Amino acid sequence: MNKSIIRYILCQVMRIEGALMLLPLIVAVLYGDPEWVDFAIVSGGLIILGWLGTISKPKNNTIYLKEGCVATSLSWIIMSLFGCLPFYMSGAIPRFTDALFETVSGFTTTGASILFDIESLSHSLLFWRSFTHWIGGMGVLVFLLAVVPMSGGSNINLMRAESPGPSVGKVLPKIKNTAQILYLVYLGLTLIEVILLMFGGMSIFDSLTLSFGTAGTGGFGIKNDSFMSYTPYVQWVAGIFMLLFGINFNFYCFMLLRQFRKAFTLEEVRKYLLIIAAATAIIFVNILSMYENAFKALTHAFFQVTSIMTTTGFASADFDTWPTVCKLTLVILMMIGACAGSTGGGIKVSRFIVLFKSIRKELSSYIHPKIVRKINMDGRPVEHEVVRSINVFFISFFAVMVGSTFLVSLDNFDLTTSFTAVVATLDNIGPGLAKVGPTCNYALFSPFSKYVLILDMIAGRLELFPLLILFHPRLYAEAFRKKNK
Amino acid sequence: MNKSIIRYILCQVMRIEGALMLLPLIVAVLYGDPEWVDFAIVSGGLIILGWLGTISKPKNNTIYLKEGCVATSLSWIIMSLFGCLPFYMSGAIPRFTDALFETVSGFTTTGASILFDIESLSHSLLFWRSFTHWIGGMGVLVFLLAVVPMSGGSNINLMRAESPGPSVGKVLPKIKNTAQILYLVYLGLTLIEVILLMFGGMSIFDSLTLSFGTAGTGGFGIKNDSFMSYTPYVQWVAGIFMLLFGINFNFYCFMLLRQFRKAFTLEEVRKYLLIIAAATAIIFVNILSMYENAFKALTHAFFQVTSIMTTTGFASADFDTWPTVCKLTLVILMMIGACAGSTGGGIKVSRFIVLFKSIRKELSSYIHPKIVRKINMDGRPVEHEVVRSINVFFISFFAVMVGSTFLVSLDNFDLTTSFTAVVATLDNIGPGLAKVGPTCNYALFSPFSKYVLILDMIAGRLELFPLLILFHPRLYAEAFRKKNK
Repeated sequence: MNKSIIRYILCQVMRIEGALMLLPLIVAVLYGDPEWVDFAIVSGGLIILGWLGTISKPKNNTIYLKEGCVATSLSWIIMSLFGCLPFYMSGAIPRFTDALFETVSGFTTTGASILFDIESLSHSLLFWRSFTHWIGGMGVLVFLLAVVPMSGGSNINLMRAESPGPSVGKVLPKIKNTAQILYLVYLGLTLIEVILLMFGGMSIFDSLTLSFGTAGTGGFGIKNDSFMSYTPYVQWVAGIFMLLFGINFNFYCFMLLRQFRKAFTLEEVRKYLLIIAAATAIIFVNILSMYENAFKALTHAFFQVTSIMTTTGFASADFDTWPTVCKLTLVILMMIGACAGSTGGGIKVSRFIVLFKSIRKELSSYIHPKIVRKINMDGRPVEHEVVRSINVFFISFFAVMVGSTFLVSLDNFDLTTSFTAVVATLDNIGPGLAKVGPTCNYALFSPFSKYVLILDMIAGRLELFPLLILFHPRLYAEAFRKKNK
Repeated sequence: MNKSIIRYILCQVMRIEGALMLLPLIVAVLYGDPEWVDFAIVSGGLIILGWLGTISKPKNNTIYLKEGCVATSLSWIIMSLFGCLPFYMSGAIPRFTDALFETVSGFTTTGASILFDIESLSHSLLFWRSFTHWIGGMGVLVFLLAVVPMSGGSNINLMRAESPGPSVGKVLPKIKNTAQILYLVYLGLTLIEVILLMFGGMSIFDSLTLSFGTAGTGGFGIKNDSFMSYTPYVQWVAGIFMLLFGINFNFYCFMLLRQFRKAFTLEEVRKYLLIIAAATAIIFVNILSMYENAFKALTHAFFQVTSIMTTTGFASADFDTWPTVCKLTLVILMMIGACAGSTGGGIKVSRFIVLFKSIRKELSSYIHPKIVRKINMDGRPVEHEVVRSINVFFISFFAVMVGSTFLVSLDNFDLTTSFTAVVATLDNIGPGLAKVGPTCNYALFSPFSKYVLILDMIAGRLELFPLLILFHPRLYAEAFRKKNK
């Protein structure tokens, strides 16, 4: 394994995190928060450590998939370990496990919180909390690729390990340009949302933090009741933007490149919109009698469907009190998740499309065993290797889900709580049902369960394999063999 | 499609069902039950109808997989429709939907009941109720193959459609002999259990009915409290026999053929025993404080683990009151299910072995992308086609499970009830948790939900595809095209 390139990447990530932490530092100074000291220390430390570690450049620039995965997993772990320090040092979150949980929840765009009183946090901490969503949404390594000049054609393996979805589409021939266009779209959409929210009478601070939470499909709000007390205008703006950030970013790239036909025929995007429409309709019909008028019911149905399906996790209503069929619809949406290549989590719509097509293919083979069928997507056949890897992904996801639920159930909360806590963290959503419902939080779990959920959040954000191979004995066996040679 | 062979098979099945119904008729006469009339009418009707339908033999004996699946699904539906008549006509179960539910639950060896007072049933009805488990356990078409002379080498497709597991092992070169040896083992083991239960002081009627329920891994008992009031001796005998009936019958065939080495190295059987041991240990530790002594706790832990894992569904204790980790362990066992080629249901241990091996293979490919690995089982590589079909099976199972839970949740019971009701029927177990826990029953559901669960039970017993292709439009499109030619 090429250890020096991994070291180099990790230190670059530290430098970037240090630089990004200057923003909450500025906020702290502007609002006169005492936390400016904590941000200054951590930011300075990160920049210095990162600078020291990047002085000597690695001789070998090759990044195989293995190095890409290890570098990515470790980056996310290190980022979270340093990112939680301002919460911990300032005393805002007195326990380290809790501070780490909150920060991992931020970077992985989960939005699960252990805080009871969010409104008591200072402006700079609230800003940093929401900003972690924005950083994690598009990914810090994609950012690295966009800003740091790195030679070698194997950078795609870094992007592949961090970007969600079964296959990373290079929209432009160069990785660097692809990463730049992605961040451009990301920044542009975020800015539009900020402006639209300010039109609704919101302050710039509120608009910024909420837009970070929406853009990263994270779900950290700045009010104790999430989105419940905002006006319908704000709820609709946020709802529509959650929907937009859950779309495969290839759609926007094609639009920018004026390939409109390609953009509008993307199968995943069409199915995604169809599922949102169907789920909204189901929930709307079933909660109609619970609200004063049809508009309110529609607002809540649409907001909650986009919020859960894109794995954001904002709540405009306490959906834990809705009828069972609505709750189940939301749990199903949790698992489906957003489009591949978006900032959302979950298993992803495109994977489900392929899975359903393979069921159809299997059934057909019972009727006409001799006809060989290929699975098509966007008019092109899906390679056998991709189908296989989607199958294995689904099974692994299921295995991690069941295993984690088992470990969390040792805390002896009810089944719905244990199960939806795992689903809501593994799929990077945030709120689950019952004791982790939208009006509750994750403080009740034991430290052991919290660490299980922390790993679930990272595993979910990195789509399992990059994190799982860290636990693969073969990785160390090989490193050990080389040392002894 | 070869319709005349399907008609021929269905009528043979009716004749067999008619003949088998003579047994409860004898019981009715012996105990002086007034239900003898109902049994006589239905049995006579079945034999006459079946005889009429088998007078003209089909010209073409070929059974492709398609015909095998259609014939099997329809056989099970017809068997249930006629089998429920004694319950309905005698007035013991006044509603037809309920009578059908109970009978499907019997034949599919589920054991989910809609009856509140089982002990009020007459001897002959109790006998028939338990006997359906025994018929369904090994399968009526396997029985057909064992007793009716059928020419043509394509009979394997009938067996393949009805027998559980990813691949049907022909232990002997001839299908007829394989079917015979399977029934021989089945009958032998059942008889041993009957004798052992009688040693425990049980009457012959009780021993027979309970052995039917164990052998088919069904779960219908003859007491309102299932197995709770029996002595530990009876509980241990039943527990051990549930374990034995959950083993791949290839094991017993190898033993009979004196291939001991082959028998004892079967990977699936070893893993199956390992899972039972581990699950028993987990539950034992967690319920130790709930019972007077360790022996009682161990008895309940072992009994419940074998009962649930083999998908029998007898209850020696109200496991719905156990700690969450125990309940979750049981839910996981529900999904795993017994060995392939046993009378048990669920996804099957061998499928999970292959699934886990494919996850391991995928992780290794991240570390060494160039090494091509094969998945091995029992020392032989598993064919690519088998792995693919196991993947698709798992995904389809999951899809049916989620879809059914959605439909059942329209009754607005809590999530645990809706979900475990589906799992317990689709996996052919019987009791679930919460409102369908071991002390409750399925009477509470709406007729719509009952029909969903009826289809789940049949789909689970036939391992999805034979039933699913009945709903495939291509099947009818083809039949329609041929008619118009």
